[in-house]
Amino acid sequence: MSVSSNAPTVAIVGATGAVGQEFLRLFEERNFIHGDLHLLASARSAGTTTEYRGEQHTITELTEEALEGIDIALFSAGGSISKAYGPTAAAAGATVIDNSSAFRMASEVPLVIPEINGDLAESYRTGDGRGRPGIIANPNCSTIIMMVPLHEVRRRFGIERLVISTYQAVSGAGAAAMRELDAQTRDVLEGREPTREIFARQCAFNVFSHDSKVHSETGRNVEEQKMIDETRKIWCDDHIRVTATCIRVPVMRAHAESINVTLRQPASEAEFRAALEATEGITLVDDREANDFPTPLEASGRDPILVGRVRPDESMPSEGGKHCAFDLFVCGDQIRKGAALNAVQIAERVMGS
Amino acid sequence: MSVSSNAPTVAIVGATGAVGQEFLRLFEERNFIHGDLHLLASARSAGTTTEYRGEQHTITELTEEALEGIDIALFSAGGSISKAYGPTAAAAGATVIDNSSAFRMASEVPLVIPEINGDLAESYRTGDGRGRPGIIANPNCSTIIMMVPLHEVRRRFGIERLVISTYQAVSGAGAAAMRELDAQTRDVLEGREPTREIFARQCAFNVFSHDSKVHSETGRNVEEQKMIDETRKIWCDDHIRVTATCIRVPVMRAHAESINVTLRQPASEAEFRAALEATEGITLVDDREANDFPTPLEASGRDPILVGRVRPDESMPSEGGKHCAFDLFVCGDQIRKGAALNAVQIAERVMGS
Repeated sequence: MSVSSNAPTVAIVGATGAVGQEFLRLFEERNFIHGDLHLLASARSAGTTTEYRGEQHTITELTEEALEGIDIALFSAGGSISKAYGPTAAAAGATVIDNSSAFRMASEVPLVIPEINGDLAESYRTGDGRGRPGIIANPNCSTIIMMVPLHEVRRRFGIERLVISTYQAVSGAGAAAMRELDAQTRDVLEGREPTREIFARQCAFNVFSHDSKVHSETGRNVEEQKMIDETRKIWCDDHIRVTATCIRVPVMRAHAESINVTLRQPASEAEFRAALEATEGITLVDDREANDFPTPLEASGRDPILVGRVRPDESMPSEGGKHCAFDLFVCGDQIRKGAALNAVQIAERVMGS
Repeated sequence: MSVSSNAPTVAIVGATGAVGQEFLRLFEERNFIHGDLHLLASARSAGTTTEYRGEQHTITELTEEALEGIDIALFSAGGSISKAYGPTAAAAGATVIDNSSAFRMASEVPLVIPEINGDLAESYRTGDGRGRPGIIANPNCSTIIMMVPLHEVRRRFGIERLVISTYQAVSGAGAAAMRELDAQTRDVLEGREPTREIFARQCAFNVFSHDSKVHSETGRNVEEQKMIDETRKIWCDDHIRVTATCIRVPVMRAHAESINVTLRQPASEAEFRAALEATEGITLVDDREANDFPTPLEASGRDPILVGRVRPDESMPSEGGKHCAFDLFVCGDQIRKGAALNAVQIAERVMGS
């Protein structure tokens, strides 16, 4: 294990999950310097091993005791585990970086996308790289993948309204959902009735409205409401108008989003494109001649959000070559920038690395 | 063959394709009464047989001579075949119902969705059920699947603007594309590099921007431009504002569309829903409690467009319970209502059946 005795003790809560495993890959790839590393999971997984930097490491059961002496705790084991153990870890002295929705909208908890409001994470920096106790929330994957590409656009022109339709990978529902897509696809190809366990709807060769609960009054599902609420919190803008339709597609691990953005100040296509070119964390894939635009497959396993299909929306007013609205299509790895990478980037900001 | 000697002689041009085969299924299902039936295709398919009403029928080569003596000709063999043979068939006396984009925007050619402007097809009715010579165009599949659900909404409240994102099945690129999705999926599951022949991008476990040509200036692809132009022509409304992002998903034969609609006159949710309930050609699948909404799988092989996720778009102004905008999610069989069914319905209007 790459251990430095001066470096912070790190815990991964949910180490056997899709995001937990990605933390380990990212630590290795980014040469994330840590001291002792505690790989925590449910009693069911305790005692099993997982590979990290070419060696097998044993998974330990998540208990209150296991959270003592931790400097940085990366949580990705679902909202109920975060609620049960996140405050305990923080009380015991850890900076908790929580991947669940449990604390995102709590007023005292910063909701951080490092490219946008990384300064909020830096306020947890202590100088010794260990961080101060408390909870920092990692936003919803669809929110991150939509906001990173638009941050510089917003800074230059303002954003009045967003109309978003998502094409979400099954990984957002965890590793078991990815296995379900694989198994269902094999079933369909062999003419068997596919088994549904994670999703109520068949995901193989199908698309369906997001599996989160639908509010009986508003008609919005929880995923869509998160995109509205988190966007407002992260941009500190209660007036930004957002509507989203969140849909699952039979893709393993990267989300795509079709975004229609109305600006507060009109921009020429060149100005809009220049803002995207200056945006941290994205890569433009936008070749009209070659019909080469972002795909989730191409975004998978990669850090940047891929951005393309950039064009003025001619259904909205334009004057003198300046347009009020633009359309674009973006793809980002749900497990990586949508979850694990964003959390590790937060940890790096806290540690000052 | 279900032949009536008084009934019109019918030709199917492109009888071996996905849509051509669907014509035969629909004729049987709907007990479409015809006289002689000519199944035409390229020289490559001539001499092969296809099943219809439990019997094998021989495919004949498409030639100018083969189009003589036809009353109703259903064309679905691509734009270049329609351009080459459609006017010939019409000149020889046939009512041509053309599924390609070749004649859709020609000012003298009606572009017909029977639920919306079926009266234009009826003007081809002659009384003897044989139709008058000429060409009627069948709209683009994505256009049909978007417009059918909104027609009564438009009649009651007016439509100011549409923001559409599509989730398009591979069937729109023909039967070979459906075989490619099947083969690529098997390849990916077996760890082989998938072969790409129809689509430049991998379609298995992936989504990608529509494969039609992208205009170098506007940035819109041909599919998106069709949705704009055809919507304006069918509703006879040059002012309706439409923007679309057209995306392919790994689904066999039904399209889904996420639609954001801005009304000219605000409507309450109950009023909007009542308009949908009064809309011909759709079925509402909209159970928030059960998270039961339209899916392409459920729409496959069925006539109606499934409509759900109906909700006010709270990113747009509302006053006194009346909303300016709504979101919805629709699914329709691309081969059926998106192509073959719409064309057969046009033929039925012409024939007066």
